[in-house]
Amino acid sequence: MKTRKVGIIGLGHVGAHVAYSLAVQGIADELVLVDSNEKKVESECQDLRDSVAYLPHRVTVNIGTYEDLGDCDVIVNSIGKIEILRANQDRTDEMKFTVPAVNSYVGRVKASGFDGVVVNITNPCDVVTQQLAKGLGLPRGRVFGTGTGLDTSRLLSALARQTGIDHKSITAYMLGEHGNQQFAAWSNVSFRGKSLEEWAKTDERFRFDRDALQKESIRGGWVTFSGKYCTEYGIATTAARMVSIVLHDEKQIMPASAELCGEYGEKDVFVGVPCVIGKNGVEEVVELSLNEREKEELKKSCDVIRGNIKMVEEKK
Amino acid sequence: MKTRKVGIIGLGHVGAHVAYSLAVQGIADELVLVDSNEKKVESECQDLRDSVAYLPHRVTVNIGTYEDLGDCDVIVNSIGKIEILRANQDRTDEMKFTVPAVNSYVGRVKASGFDGVVVNITNPCDVVTQQLAKGLGLPRGRVFGTGTGLDTSRLLSALARQTGIDHKSITAYMLGEHGNQQFAAWSNVSFRGKSLEEWAKTDERFRFDRDALQKESIRGGWVTFSGKYCTEYGIATTAARMVSIVLHDEKQIMPASAELCGEYGEKDVFVGVPCVIGKNGVEEVVELSLNEREKEELKKSCDVIRGNIKMVEEKK
Amino acid sequence: MKTRKVGIIGLGHVGAHVAYSLAVQGIADELVLVDSNEKKVESECQDLRDSVAYLPHRVTVNIGTYEDLGDCDVIVNSIGKIEILRANQDRTDEMKFTVPAVNSYVGRVKASGFDGVVVNITNPCDVVTQQLAKGLGLPRGRVFGTGTGLDTSRLLSALARQTGIDHKSITAYMLGEHGNQQFAAWSNVSFRGKSLEEWAKTDERFRFDRDALQKESIRGGWVTFSGKYCTEYGIATTAARMVSIVLHDEKQIMPASAELCGEYGEKDVFVGVPCVIGKNGVEEVVELSLNEREKEELKKSCDVIRGNIKMVEEKK
Amino acid sequence: MKTRKVGIIGLGHVGAHVAYSLAVQGIADELVLVDSNEKKVESECQDLRDSVAYLPHRVTVNIGTYEDLGDCDVIVNSIGKIEILRANQDRTDEMKFTVPAVNSYVGRVKASGFDGVVVNITNPCDVVTQQLAKGLGLPRGRVFGTGTGLDTSRLLSALARQTGIDHKSITAYMLGEHGNQQFAAWSNVSFRGKSLEEWAKTDERFRFDRDALQKESIRGGWVTFSGKYCTEYGIATTAARMVSIVLHDEKQIMPASAELCGEYGEKDVFVGVPCVIGKNGVEEVVELSLNEREKEELKKSCDVIRGNIKMVEEKK
Repeated sequence: MKTRKVGIIGLGHVGAHVAYSLAVQGIADELVLVDSNEKKVESECQDLRDSVAYLPHRVTVNIGTYEDLGDCDVIVNSIGKIEILRANQDRTDEMKFTVPAVNSYVGRVKASGFDGVVVNITNPCDVVTQQLAKGLGLPRGRVFGTGTGLDTSRLLSALARQTGIDHKSITAYMLGEHGNQQFAAWSNVSFRGKSLEEWAKTDERFRFDRDALQKESIRGGWVTFSGKYCTEYGIATTAARMVSIVLHDEKQIMPASAELCGEYGEKDVFVGVPCVIGKNGVEEVVELSLNEREKEELKKSCDVIRGNIKMVEEKK
Repeated sequence: MKTRKVGIIGLGHVGAHVAYSLAVQGIADELVLVDSNEKKVESECQDLRDSVAYLPHRVTVNIGTYEDLGDCDVIVNSIGKIEILRANQDRTDEMKFTVPAVNSYVGRVKASGFDGVVVNITNPCDVVTQQLAKGLGLPRGRVFGTGTGLDTSRLLSALARQTGIDHKSITAYMLGEHGNQQFAAWSNVSFRGKSLEEWAKTDERFRFDRDALQKESIRGGWVTFSGKYCTEYGIATTAARMVSIVLHDEKQIMPASAELCGEYGEKDVFVGVPCVIGKNGVEEVVELSLNEREKEELKKSCDVIRGNIKMVEEKK
Repeated sequence: MKTRKVGIIGLGHVGAHVAYSLAVQGIADELVLVDSNEKKVESECQDLRDSVAYLPHRVTVNIGTYEDLGDCDVIVNSIGKIEILRANQDRTDEMKFTVPAVNSYVGRVKASGFDGVVVNITNPCDVVTQQLAKGLGLPRGRVFGTGTGLDTSRLLSALARQTGIDHKSITAYMLGEHGNQQFAAWSNVSFRGKSLEEWAKTDERFRFDRDALQKESIRGGWVTFSGKYCTEYGIATTAARMVSIVLHDEKQIMPASAELCGEYGEKDVFVGVPCVIGKNGVEEVVELSLNEREKEELKKSCDVIRGNIKMVEEKK
Repeated sequence: MKTRKVGIIGLGHVGAHVAYSLAVQGIADELVLVDSNEKKVESECQDLRDSVAYLPHRVTVNIGTYEDLGDCDVIVNSIGKIEILRANQDRTDEMKFTVPAVNSYVGRVKASGFDGVVVNITNPCDVVTQQLAKGLGLPRGRVFGTGTGLDTSRLLSALARQTGIDHKSITAYMLGEHGNQQFAAWSNVSFRGKSLEEWAKTDERFRFDRDALQKESIRGGWVTFSGKYCTEYGIATTAARMVSIVLHDEKQIMPASAELCGEYGEKDVFVGVPCVIGKNGVEEVVELSLNEREKEELKKSCDVIRGNIKMVEEKK
């Protein structure tokens, strides 16, 4: 019998918080932390271990190498260079650092014999997820990204405060690029079967400035960033939720950065769309019925991402 | 009916992580964040809210003032000045900043009508807890500190790795000052009823360098600190556990910084000792049977803390 | 500070399992068991207490009287006479026993000073809920029934097995009478924003015999009943979920037996409809956009329930 | 990747409640129910499935055959003949039915290729566990019984009510036969490092009639039994806790019916003793330092169990 083992590559703010979120929720039994900054990873390992005694379950935390990732069930990829983000506040800008970085170790992960699922957080999320998928050569769906999962969480939070209904009774999606091209798919917002449109007919709370709420969801990361110079809880909880869905083969529908192979009329691109997630990662892309404007927005996102990928490919 | 409301004063690294730990574990239904740094608290509030959609329970997070703390069930006090710690690595040094800071707002907390339990994290923990207790004038036990709770977690973690037995099957305490004067109460270490002594007779794993392990527990915070320049998960989980014990009136025995009124032959001092914790905070101090060396160590701790308090009182 | 206290009236199969479900999930801190059968309630109390040591949280369980219910946050009403059900398999038949039984103690509950929320399970659920609401005279919404909550759970389970999508990503409702008049509101079934209709266009899994699935949901209770001569886990988990939503003021939308005051064109009747549930019980009835057939079905349910209530009133 | 799969043999009161306890706590991802009574197992399967929609995690429940147990991580053996118990109230009496029954299918379990851990509940627990271990031929420790785990839970519950300290802060064991020969190991009772002896010196609460408490723990099952004619929650939660410890490789110390191979001066017998439990089942028997009376009691238990086994062997 094997206990649940999750590897985390990159123990910056985000990776370390994913580790904590997995530990505190009892999602993983064993965590392997991989980072080239020895002092940083030792410090995070100590801090995580210091939290275990007061949790109601057992978690072991260890520092490892890429070679130790072979028998992990899931790997979370979360390297980053926060200095770039601090200087520029554009996730695409991180690409110059992150894509070569990821490509420098993807071969070692592959060589470890890893045969599980990868959840990628590293930005630009859609581009890096595609690079990882390509480098690892696992079956389709096994590598996916947090994509607009976090942005969707922000939209849900804004809708919950606006309407008084809890997040878990709301269906809403931010779709497209995990970046400035994303959009709220308003035509599909509903509250346990009652659409936003329907509700807005009779209830003031459901009539609000949609553009403002969409902007709030897209810019939420920068609100967080501007006060603490990093983002931690939102992204960590999003990734931890995805890991949990995979480990328990939950078959939930949730937005993620997944490869399109004809869905939404697009292919050869990873982009934020609703997916059925299970033990094989993204097991199905869900094609929502979008309105014309939303279709256009999704197309724009795919074009932007493909443009970025092209830049990456040319650089090599 | 009232939902569980927890206030957090001071949204630095520690306070914000306590908030996350409470949110992710579903310990509180409502969090009120109080901090004078408006941009920082807004940023933490946004980040926390961004994590809620993917948790299995509902938590609401709001920014508040001292006046909003009146109907909280528990307040966690966690202000700090990390710059001092970064410069000097001595928790006592923080006193010059933290004691006046705490005294500047304790009256406002009292004026809010607050009638719950306070868990203090702010360092030097034993001194600041005493100041808070004095300032609030609540019944004995209602104000206590994390004290050697975190250090105990470190000792448990070291013992678990050494022996292969899980933390939750180990009884062990770091006692005394949450600072350099603390000590491991080796005479009381046991593993579900089998003492360390007994086990060491026949099993190699239980014969180890106790001084080294004690040092590891005392210095663990600095290992964490030296790599990430803050401590987050360990202390946040310790405080969250205490809040949970109070909110559910759990009557668990756990080390905390509590007022001695004759126990262990000491009085007028807050120091890290085992306590029965419940809805009234520290409801009982547990007097362990210590050996002579340990008694001496505890006395030293009390003397050091009393010395610090005297310094504080004279400054006023 | 007050811990979460839940009273349970009627410790038959259902009531005892609600107690266990609340205990094992840590939803309540304190359970008060009220039943006139002293030997049975003592036995259930012992069995529940025997389970507490191995749960990760503290729960206390005590036997009490109606007078002890005064400071409960929530009361679950679950008396029943399983012999009647065993003889006849018709929930309405239980009415002759349950309505007088409930009316015999409702005054004592009121006299206890109880000012919380009541979740009624006792059958016929819609009728008994109305009787309880009337007898207690609490503000509207404070007394509601499990209604078609359990039947909805059965429908979700059937849909999950049919489609491979998890329950928590499916929106579907059984509405109307918790009895033979209930119906599946097919026009509102969706999977995180993608309607059943839409999905059925391209995917075989979503084309199925709807009548068969509806029948399965209505008859599911009898499948359970015919093999074990009682129902336990499904109904207990439904009621426990509702108690949790109330205690944490979750504001979830969930089907429950709630009073209609104009919604769906009906009034003076309790019937299974989607509700926003929070600390005040049913805080809002959600009016779904139903098709003509479904409107007709709901009307029929209301008529049947009103007919039953009339029978009850005349009997007095 | 494989999700957590637990098989349950025997879906009587106990087995079905183990299934529910595993489901509601999210301990298993998949449950396989094996029972020759088709109607009963279908009924339990339906009832369990009806509970899933309102749990915060995904669990799938299916009916299977012995052959489907091959890839289970853990099997819980819980067949029984409650009629015998109802007639006689002696667990040993059940032996005439249960031992032949277990031996009738153990070969089929072995043939399934099962290579995990077995937790046996079937009474007489110590005897049946030994029979299962022998029949399956797995490495030592992989087959163990709930033994005095449940009785210990009863002792902890009695001590918690007596002292006001929570179960999880108490160390205490019922040891020996899961039957009338068991005993409380009073010399090892402690409260987070403070012994019962020590505490009794100064505190009235800790001076009580030990024989009465011991009797309460031994007879607790019959209190439950006499009011509801079965036992459910206590035993189910005990077994579920053990399954969880195995699945998460927790390395907790907990009493269980384990094979002695020289420990406590005994061999060739399964009996209730403290064990380190992990992914390989009982990984270590913990030898407590017992006083003379307790040693004698344990010896008596071993003799009784060996006597029963001899009866079994002779019968074949």
